[in-house]
Amino acid sequence: MAFEYPRTIHFPETDAAGVVFFASYLALCHEAYEEALASAGMRVSDFFAGERHGVIIPIARSEADYLQPLTVGDRIRIRVRPERLDAHRFAISYEVVRSGPPEKTVARARTEHVCIHATSRERVPLPAELAAWVDAR
Amino acid sequence: MAFEYPRTIHFPETDAAGVVFFASYLALCHEAYEEALASAGMRVSDFFAGERHGVIIPIARSEADYLQPLTVGDRIRIRVRPERLDAHRFAISYEVVRSGPPEKTVARARTEHVCIHATSRERVPLPAELAAWVDAR
Amino acid sequence: MAFEYPRTIHFPETDAAGVVFFASYLALCHEAYEEALASAGMRVSDFFAGERHGVIIPIARSEADYLQPLTVGDRIRIRVRPERLDAHRFAISYEVVRSGPPEKTVARARTEHVCIHATSRERVPLPAELAAWVDAR
Amino acid sequence: MAFEYPRTIHFPETDAAGVVFFASYLALCHEAYEEALASAGMRVSDFFAGERHGVIIPIARSEADYLQPLTVGDRIRIRVRPERLDAHRFAISYEVVRSGPPEKTVARARTEHVCIHATSRERVPLPAELAAWVDAR
Repeated sequence: MAFEYPRTIHFPETDAAGVVFFASYLALCHEAYEEALASAGMRVSDFFAGERHGVIIPIARSEADYLQPLTVGDRIRIRVRPERLDAHRFAISYEVVRSGPPEKTVARARTEHVCIHATSRERVPLPAELAAWVDAR
Repeated sequence: MAFEYPRTIHFPETDAAGVVFFASYLALCHEAYEEALASAGMRVSDFFAGERHGVIIPIARSEADYLQPLTVGDRIRIRVRPERLDAHRFAISYEVVRSGPPEKTVARARTEHVCIHATSRERVPLPAELAAWVDAR
Repeated sequence: MAFEYPRTIHFPETDAAGVVFFASYLALCHEAYEEALASAGMRVSDFFAGERHGVIIPIARSEADYLQPLTVGDRIRIRVRPERLDAHRFAISYEVVRSGPPEKTVARARTEHVCIHATSRERVPLPAELAAWVDAR
Repeated sequence: MAFEYPRTIHFPETDAAGVVFFASYLALCHEAYEEALASAGMRVSDFFAGERHGVIIPIARSEADYLQPLTVGDRIRIRVRPERLDAHRFAISYEVVRSGPPEKTVARARTEHVCIHATSRERVPLPAELAAWVDAR
């Protein structure tokens, strides 16, 4: 079962077209990814700032399909599904659903993440607790 | 009693100093203001996009004191207190508190808002339901 | 020849990993797209807010490959190439190049845009001046 | 004479009210501050990430008066004036001017900065080259 992150759309995410700016969907998806890690017991700052393990996990690729506009006050849920790519890499799929009725999928996105050593920038295996989370899905 | 908005600090709010960027505190405070209006039964989009009443309510001034840094994963609550300034204007005070233990006030901010007509841009009185919310505090 | 948009990386674009946040690359690319339209004599606000032609042009899809990190003070250029997809749709390819020496491609991105009527949301042909710009490349 | 930073307003800075979001003015001012430091020969990343001198310079306070809205495509200049407060602190005043004709001051802002040691967080004197820039104005 996918992790779900509930969220309300706020004014700072919108642009002069009156709707959420396309790049802000990806920031919302990253929030959902952080919440998924936290709910699995991981300290998010460890993974993003390389404070632990000496590993950082930059995003190597993103894709998104924007199906419907979102406006201020909309209630959404973001479904987060990790997927293992290889020893050093994983992907996350996101489905952004606007609460209804009727409920509606308004965007789909995907990010690819690669584990590298913070200083050498060589590829390294996923840290154990992250691997456990990715592989459990 | 002040309205309180709970929030977790996410990665997109931070900057290369490793902490929340100063201008992002104000975006967080605006989120809290939106949530306070919503919890009082107002449709936030009405007030920001001028879709109703023909009134828009731009922010005329902001102030903020940044007392402590915030990092990814920090849990905060933002206390929101409106205050009437005159027939056309009100202010909101924000206290940003990092959850503990020990609990800590990490920032204080204040915004001033002025009601104007969407097309003539003349000052107009606060819409009734907004006035009721401001004056009840 | 592609349009090129020069830019310096600033602090608000970075995150706690010390580098530009992945979604901010897409905001930078959108800036480059706006500058390309402006340099071709188009009023950008016409196309984004639907104030003219009754047409809005939302982004339906984005893709990006993040090859190298960018840090505060880095000088970049973004190359912008439009491409016609069909009567109602076009794509923009972006190459983000960090100035050298040595010069380095740090990201590639692509956005797909669809012209729709502002109120009916039906697909409509590209406005003439936009079509001229897309088809000239 | 004040340093001036020219800038065009882009779509990501705007919100659903069709104008630049109030907190984004402060991000624009920070860009101008970075450009002022760079034009005085300082490496901006040194001062924000504490990579040199062991000193970081967080913003302790901000104020802004928003006089006029800014929309996509507006050309602005931001005038930057530093001012010494004491051995450890300085302020920057910003005037945001929309190009004309007629030219118009659309916002005024001010930030206060305090030099602290990156690890002990004790107040320290301004690094010499920063002090020279602040005191020259």
